[in-house]
Amino acid sequence: MTLPMPTFADIEDARKRLAGYAVATPLLESHHLSELAQGRILIKAESLQRTGSFKFRGAWNRISRLDPTTAKGGVVAYSSGNHAQGVAAAAQLKGFPAVIVMPADTPEIKKGNTRAYGAEIVTYDRATESREAIAIRIAGERSAIIVPPFEDRHVIAGQGTVGLELADQAAALGAKLDVVLIGTSGGGLAAGIALAIEAKSPSTRVYVVEPEGFDDYGRSLRSGKIERNAKASGSICDALLSPEPGRLTMAINRPRLAGGLAVSEKEVRRAVRYAFERLKLVIEPGGAASLAAILAQKIETQGKVFGVVASGGNVDPALFAEIIAARD
Amino acid sequence: MTLPMPTFADIEDARKRLAGYAVATPLLESHHLSELAQGRILIKAESLQRTGSFKFRGAWNRISRLDPTTAKGGVVAYSSGNHAQGVAAAAQLKGFPAVIVMPADTPEIKKGNTRAYGAEIVTYDRATESREAIAIRIAGERSAIIVPPFEDRHVIAGQGTVGLELADQAAALGAKLDVVLIGTSGGGLAAGIALAIEAKSPSTRVYVVEPEGFDDYGRSLRSGKIERNAKASGSICDALLSPEPGRLTMAINRPRLAGGLAVSEKEVRRAVRYAFERLKLVIEPGGAASLAAILAQKIETQGKVFGVVASGGNVDPALFAEIIAARD
Repeated sequence: MTLPMPTFADIEDARKRLAGYAVATPLLESHHLSELAQGRILIKAESLQRTGSFKFRGAWNRISRLDPTTAKGGVVAYSSGNHAQGVAAAAQLKGFPAVIVMPADTPEIKKGNTRAYGAEIVTYDRATESREAIAIRIAGERSAIIVPPFEDRHVIAGQGTVGLELADQAAALGAKLDVVLIGTSGGGLAAGIALAIEAKSPSTRVYVVEPEGFDDYGRSLRSGKIERNAKASGSICDALLSPEPGRLTMAINRPRLAGGLAVSEKEVRRAVRYAFERLKLVIEPGGAASLAAILAQKIETQGKVFGVVASGGNVDPALFAEIIAARD
Repeated sequence: MTLPMPTFADIEDARKRLAGYAVATPLLESHHLSELAQGRILIKAESLQRTGSFKFRGAWNRISRLDPTTAKGGVVAYSSGNHAQGVAAAAQLKGFPAVIVMPADTPEIKKGNTRAYGAEIVTYDRATESREAIAIRIAGERSAIIVPPFEDRHVIAGQGTVGLELADQAAALGAKLDVVLIGTSGGGLAAGIALAIEAKSPSTRVYVVEPEGFDDYGRSLRSGKIERNAKASGSICDALLSPEPGRLTMAINRPRLAGGLAVSEKEVRRAVRYAFERLKLVIEPGGAASLAAILAQKIETQGKVFGVVASGGNVDPALFAEIIAARD
């Protein structure tokens, strides 16, 4: 089965659909950061998006298209994190019931955030059960529609509105983007942004950024085949742990991306702390991977204009407190 | 001596002077907050300003006007907080030496932040010395110019650019501002904003917000004379502890403000935590007083459009960690 590919027109259409529901997040400039990097660093603050991450965009673009009569069984998604909240909030706005499939050991705070958007949570055992199988079973039982985290034309088009806004906002600042950096898991956000940037700013190079040890996307781009991560957990970047690239996202990204960068846990922690101290932004570890690549000089910034996507801000208070209080 | 009053034209002029140096901070909308308040709550995020607070605006508007030949002795200011950083950064950009007079017991982190902008720090004993007298002495010795925190036409006009941007940004969102809330110490930010709002949105009511026990501005507005605070310290809102209103700021504010609100320390802590959890913004306690007034329902918000000025984000990591980890 070949999934339908999103086009640039789908992203433009998604922007219209998101207007008034999603936040057109600001593109922020910090003189401190630009001076540090000896370039011009523009932060696309998706942490300020509804539900605290870019995931609401794709969820809304998918769910708001559902026919209310055929979709009265609601929606199902599997996620313990940002996609769960995005789907739950979008479904609540449309009046659809939502079921979110989460590992039984998901922290209570994440379950609570998702329930707060009116979703029902079904838990499973990570060791013995498949979340996809559970979602398919629930979808069958309830005539519900599965909203995938990234392997979907309208989800990718929704995420692509980040790139559309970024290109327009940079142009309004008189900035010509040399490079865009995107923290990446399954590749849906990167795919959407890559499509938008290709149309709006074709000379801009787009990179994915991943945690060390979870750099399946970068390795797959280099090898030309789908590479998996050896580990399934163990990174502070809980939003970036997809085990392998999506097939659809990779089909979009392979011809469009300039490459992949990897950052260490320590570099991510420093980026979260820098965002607190200097940018005054709450960015979750996975959302700060792109900023970490700048601060740790994983790529030359001198004299260049960077668009850095800070993809989310949903971080546990205890972890955030530990990170900002540290002095390493 | 009567100090010259700033005019609306001074604020428009300041905006031109600030372009490219200060950040035109975003006006942010949170669906969560608006639903909670049953109104439309727009946050003017001055925490995202250069140096982490609005103070850079007034400092730059004052210091960038100095004649380089007569001002080669540099500038002097007294402040342990946001004004210190604003003045130091503005002076550094213009190549002027800066001396900041701070209490000897100022936390090392604030001294370090100010030194990082190239300023020299002179300390004094809070109990036995007058910071104004020390500043005057230094200014005399070095032929330096004192940059007052609020009793100055160009400082107030610089802060007024917050109001000018707020009015324009709200209009661009199709929002007609009913009320503007401003955390207030000496009254310079409120005076500048009140002048701008009077010209741009005359039916909007502007309120100052202060910590309980440090509500000299609100009491002075009510009594018609200058009221002092009984205490000089002891609030978490370290940016809002001016002992009494400025004469110049009060002359501007009295005929223009709708009144003053007071918030408790607990309400401020909740607002800082809410900003972390839901807005994903780092707002310092004094900067969150205005948001606290919304969350604690100190004023009717139902069906109304509010502009809430979050004036700064310079908060000690240990204090921030303590606030976000608490569950009261």
